[in-house]
Amino acid sequence: MNTPFNFQLQMRQGRARAGVFTTPHGEIHTPVFAPVGTQATVKALTPAQLSELKASLVLANTYHLYLRPGDSLISEMGGLHRFMNWQNPILTDSGGFQVFSLANSRVIDDDGVTFKSHVDGSTHRFTPEKAIAIQENLGADIIMAFDECAEPYDREYNKQAVSRTHAWAERCLATKIRQDQALFGIVQGGVFPDLREHSARFISSLDFPGNAIGGLSVGETKDEMHAMLEVVDPILPADKPRYLMGVGTAEDMVNGVKRGIDIFDCVLPTRLARHNAALTRTGRLNIANATFAQDQKPIDETCTCYTCQNFTRAYVRHLVVTKEMLSATLLSIHNLHTLLQLAGDIRLAILEERFDDFYTEFFVRREGS
Amino acid sequence: MNTPFNFQLQMRQGRARAGVFTTPHGEIHTPVFAPVGTQATVKALTPAQLSELKASLVLANTYHLYLRPGDSLISEMGGLHRFMNWQNPILTDSGGFQVFSLANSRVIDDDGVTFKSHVDGSTHRFTPEKAIAIQENLGADIIMAFDECAEPYDREYNKQAVSRTHAWAERCLATKIRQDQALFGIVQGGVFPDLREHSARFISSLDFPGNAIGGLSVGETKDEMHAMLEVVDPILPADKPRYLMGVGTAEDMVNGVKRGIDIFDCVLPTRLARHNAALTRTGRLNIANATFAQDQKPIDETCTCYTCQNFTRAYVRHLVVTKEMLSATLLSIHNLHTLLQLAGDIRLAILEERFDDFYTEFFVRREGS
Repeated sequence: MNTPFNFQLQMRQGRARAGVFTTPHGEIHTPVFAPVGTQATVKALTPAQLSELKASLVLANTYHLYLRPGDSLISEMGGLHRFMNWQNPILTDSGGFQVFSLANSRVIDDDGVTFKSHVDGSTHRFTPEKAIAIQENLGADIIMAFDECAEPYDREYNKQAVSRTHAWAERCLATKIRQDQALFGIVQGGVFPDLREHSARFISSLDFPGNAIGGLSVGETKDEMHAMLEVVDPILPADKPRYLMGVGTAEDMVNGVKRGIDIFDCVLPTRLARHNAALTRTGRLNIANATFAQDQKPIDETCTCYTCQNFTRAYVRHLVVTKEMLSATLLSIHNLHTLLQLAGDIRLAILEERFDDFYTEFFVRREGS
Repeated sequence: MNTPFNFQLQMRQGRARAGVFTTPHGEIHTPVFAPVGTQATVKALTPAQLSELKASLVLANTYHLYLRPGDSLISEMGGLHRFMNWQNPILTDSGGFQVFSLANSRVIDDDGVTFKSHVDGSTHRFTPEKAIAIQENLGADIIMAFDECAEPYDREYNKQAVSRTHAWAERCLATKIRQDQALFGIVQGGVFPDLREHSARFISSLDFPGNAIGGLSVGETKDEMHAMLEVVDPILPADKPRYLMGVGTAEDMVNGVKRGIDIFDCVLPTRLARHNAALTRTGRLNIANATFAQDQKPIDETCTCYTCQNFTRAYVRHLVVTKEMLSATLLSIHNLHTLLQLAGDIRLAILEERFDDFYTEFFVRREGS
């Protein structure tokens, strides 16, 4: 099939993989961390600052953009890349997860979901067809099938959600028109190995150009999450990228890559930044803490980001104490740099066939701090 | 006297002047607009973004920095330039204006002012000696004499405030130690020509390396402000820079330069940005207005700033509607660019001896919009 998408696996070490996913807006070097730009902006950062951070893939949320400013408006404005001025790859989710987690009085049936906007209470309905139509208006490079994310421990609900997710996946494929967007399927199944296996087999059979694992990091334990990844890894096609949705702490990335994941996204680096928390190579700092009032060190002495190259902990703390917006910007730059750099370091370790050592050293460093 | 400061007048046209003020942190090309970084940050911008805007002089507020994080702490951190990572010239005010406008239960006597912090209600006292000591701790290139700013229409109060301001100016000069800071004197006198003339003569006699005009743009009419500038212009030494404190709308700059002013500062461009207002060459836009919802034009089609080169009005409005921090950043970039560019345009017009035409065209353009 003639497609602008192509995934090249460059190296495998155990289940860990390094590759290049080519999209109409450039290459994504995997493993990759995708910053989240919920409302067509990665909070507190300009696209120029994101570019300086060497971000490649950015995620935006279909649910939010459908409500404001509306996907038709974004389409009229030339699509999401032009609207938010991000000329590198973009991924949109299907809106499903936000409908389930943010919207009010949602009613789910086999055809779709009716919900009330969290912004103004107005009533809306998403179906697989609608979710794809919205995402075609937005115009991201990677778009997601409309799925149902269930409580991880409710077996009956997960059986039903897997069935719906599969039926909806087929409807998403059938309704999709644009050739310049790669539609990824989503594996569900809670914490149940047999449901995950069943879902991974079915979703793989639909031959999406990429596959995602949804419904994780939603309340289950880390061990359960890892077990589910180990179930689906051998089933999902190796020659297509795998995306672990909404997961992306440093530990989760290292553990996800070890279990065959290529793509991660997480709001945490920017959300923590707005709550004064700085990620470091060994853990987290609450920069509002009075112990940093006269601390002349950068947030992380090993870090090469703009924030750490130019500002002290004392200055960033001063910004936090005086409620200056620049604190969110400087901490977001640092936190995103930390995760983007980590993804790059993981990738290099795989390419140089030393990921196992990298993995061990990563956790030794964390425990030692 | 051997000093790191030097003011070169390059061109005069009528009362308008173009010059270069050399400081330990580089040259200030006048007329100049100084963005305000109240708490050691120009709100919502990184120093890198300020540099891209080609800002030279940045103002910071002594009152705020004295309270948080404290001038001693900033001194220990290597001074304000290093603390806020601004390696170009910085000007600090004396703290007097904020004590009079922000602090609680202030009591003024001939020796100084006792006031309560607006942050935590704690009691503090500023004297001329204290204001200079704080500013020497902060380490700005240009520091200001401690003055008293009176209600513009109260003649008796202004007579008293002028006397105090003069006595305090002498005390500031006497107590100043650092040679790498230029102390500017301040002319007061409300809207009273005889008081302004008296004050300008006295302050000029103290031979400060630069002079400021305070107590304007505090409630009087534009005509009254212009009249006061015309009174002091022939009295203040021509070979030293003149700073019109706290004044810096586009109109005020053009009118100020016409009456002999070299340096302006104003919080308006960044404050308006946080209230969704964009300055343009012809006036102001409230970018939250629904008429901009689908407007594909930049904020100002004639503008070369990062915001106007990369984003539509529709996008900036979307950021405002969704309360995204990036709106403040993008509008601050645009608004500061507009005023910095205007100061540069004024300067070029003077250097090319066409300021009178520039002045006329500026106001024709505003009235035509």
